[in-house]
Amino acid sequence: MIVNKQIHKTHSKLLLQSGKTLENIELAYEHYGVLNSEASNAILIFHALTSNNHVAGKYYKDESKSGWWDVAVGPSKAIDTERFFVVCVNVIGGSSGSTSPASINYKTNKPYALDFPVVTIKDMARATKFVLDYLKIKKLYAVIGGCFGGFLVMEWLILFPESTQKAIIISATPSTNAYSMALWETLRQAIYFDPNFNNGNYYNSSYPTKGIGFGRLVGVLLWMSKSVFDKKFGLKLINNSNKPEYKLDPEFEAQRFMHNILGNANIGIDPNSLLYLTKAIDYFNIERDYGSLTNAFKKVKTEALLVSYDNDWRYPVEEMEKISKAFYKLGIPVKCRNLHTSFGHGAFIYDFMNGTNKLINEFLNTQQ
Amino acid sequence: MIVNKQIHKTHSKLLLQSGKTLENIELAYEHYGVLNSEASNAILIFHALTSNNHVAGKYYKDESKSGWWDVAVGPSKAIDTERFFVVCVNVIGGSSGSTSPASINYKTNKPYALDFPVVTIKDMARATKFVLDYLKIKKLYAVIGGCFGGFLVMEWLILFPESTQKAIIISATPSTNAYSMALWETLRQAIYFDPNFNNGNYYNSSYPTKGIGFGRLVGVLLWMSKSVFDKKFGLKLINNSNKPEYKLDPEFEAQRFMHNILGNANIGIDPNSLLYLTKAIDYFNIERDYGSLTNAFKKVKTEALLVSYDNDWRYPVEEMEKISKAFYKLGIPVKCRNLHTSFGHGAFIYDFMNGTNKLINEFLNTQQ
Repeated sequence: MIVNKQIHKTHSKLLLQSGKTLENIELAYEHYGVLNSEASNAILIFHALTSNNHVAGKYYKDESKSGWWDVAVGPSKAIDTERFFVVCVNVIGGSSGSTSPASINYKTNKPYALDFPVVTIKDMARATKFVLDYLKIKKLYAVIGGCFGGFLVMEWLILFPESTQKAIIISATPSTNAYSMALWETLRQAIYFDPNFNNGNYYNSSYPTKGIGFGRLVGVLLWMSKSVFDKKFGLKLINNSNKPEYKLDPEFEAQRFMHNILGNANIGIDPNSLLYLTKAIDYFNIERDYGSLTNAFKKVKTEALLVSYDNDWRYPVEEMEKISKAFYKLGIPVKCRNLHTSFGHGAFIYDFMNGTNKLINEFLNTQQ
Repeated sequence: MIVNKQIHKTHSKLLLQSGKTLENIELAYEHYGVLNSEASNAILIFHALTSNNHVAGKYYKDESKSGWWDVAVGPSKAIDTERFFVVCVNVIGGSSGSTSPASINYKTNKPYALDFPVVTIKDMARATKFVLDYLKIKKLYAVIGGCFGGFLVMEWLILFPESTQKAIIISATPSTNAYSMALWETLRQAIYFDPNFNNGNYYNSSYPTKGIGFGRLVGVLLWMSKSVFDKKFGLKLINNSNKPEYKLDPEFEAQRFMHNILGNANIGIDPNSLLYLTKAIDYFNIERDYGSLTNAFKKVKTEALLVSYDNDWRYPVEEMEKISKAFYKLGIPVKCRNLHTSFGHGAFIYDFMNGTNKLINEFLNTQQ
């Protein structure tokens, strides 16, 4: 499946949750499949923190990698592009073509960098609506998102409660938590600390990729358990012998593994974008913004599927059940499913075929 | 208890495990209590990674903090200085006065920095013996150490199997593991990455303390659980209101907590020393060095107490039991105790009065 990225330039002003405004917003998006004449077969996917609008397919035939959710989206796949028109928009603040810290601030003619305003999940959902309006899609068949994308689905439902027939929220919680904040603060401090960071003004020089590399090292320590490390590396020496050389350079496989992560630190996202997107996660708190979950979702008419995974200590099933209970209380038809997977958080991408595929496919094909 | 640090200058050469030699070694040590005329009441304590020879008491009356194990060592305490002569020696490579990367390399008249040779736990144990010889202590009443100090106790017993009547090993394992290696590699890379690091030559300028700060941030994420973060900070805003200001600076208590750790990054240890001491941990592997645990300990005559803690995922009880089984197989009298504590690793310092105190006191006061 060969796809094209498109950029929609709006001349709209967006009044942000902070009270500031963002003008002349550009939004990068992709779509797959064909929109029917009634515009009733559209599915909006919200991407996760480090992914983007490039959900499925390739930009050119020999590209090495397909979009981040290629396993889910395509002809005859769980989200079937022979039946649905699937669209995904890069969030504002992201770095795949939508207005972000790398965009030119028309007031200074330079990239915004840290002059970019803080944007929230709500702001991102509202900006996404510009693309749907432009495509003349009044009512979505479904809206889908996991993790960061799941936060966006919730804000979407709250902002546009009648805009969607079905909603799928995967691995998400109704607010962030203190531990995630600590984790994102560590990542941000690592980026700030990178000598290349230069207060965010690195667009004409070297990017602070090592700061991101530290973020990845921390991620590896948190996501890979002690037993995984033991199995994968044990106490093996790189030189395959039983005799260490006693030097400061890495001598063990486990040391080299970490060392190499830092050396190849590029996750394809602008470090400034990571600062802003993780900040948006920190601010995500439906109860603070709307008083309570039931108050937030009170106008929602959408049928919902909630999917969580065991082993996902960051976004545990109990949190998903809070959303489920609020929906149930409001009479919103809701299915809440917890799947077993060793992947924990991220299973909706890396272990999609282990049940998530069937749940989504069935949910999209069932008429109430 | 007012104590003095003493420096013992040896003119000995130490042939290191790496094959290199270290000359004119200096060793900083402290002692508490009085050595009896038979020199039979001496207890040697090995310090942990980030602590040093300053075990107990204060250097001057109004000093704000006592030594790191003041809770355990002193008159009428579990390790009673009215009865025992307690001595602790800063390991070589450490930064409390013993020969280390900060010492002057007599060949260049400059600090060694990264020209310091890699030293191992075994090298440290052998250097420690110089102080005992200098103090004319032929047979110790006991040797005690936790974590890193526990590794040293094991090497001590292997090197000098008849030098000690009793041994206490706390929170230790017979080898390091891949996960610890990954953790220490992350810390070392953070130090290397600090712009102040300057290939270890920072003694006449600013220390790379922020690199250590990142190590502490990672430590906090690994040692403080999600539920501890949730309880301690929740989603509280610093401004105590319900209204965020939407800015890049920390706005939440959890963000500020992490931010401040980095801002006050000084753990009182020379960053170069941390590089070398963590390397020594990575190399610690009794089975690799001696073929097997039973082979390593085969000449040991010492009565032993092994203490581990539940909730210590880095040094789990199963690992301690490996040591216990080897001792048992060799006919070494051994008590192996697992204590409950919410502190996990580090409980021997931070939760000493929760059982460790009694175990040690009883063990030291019982005659076989």
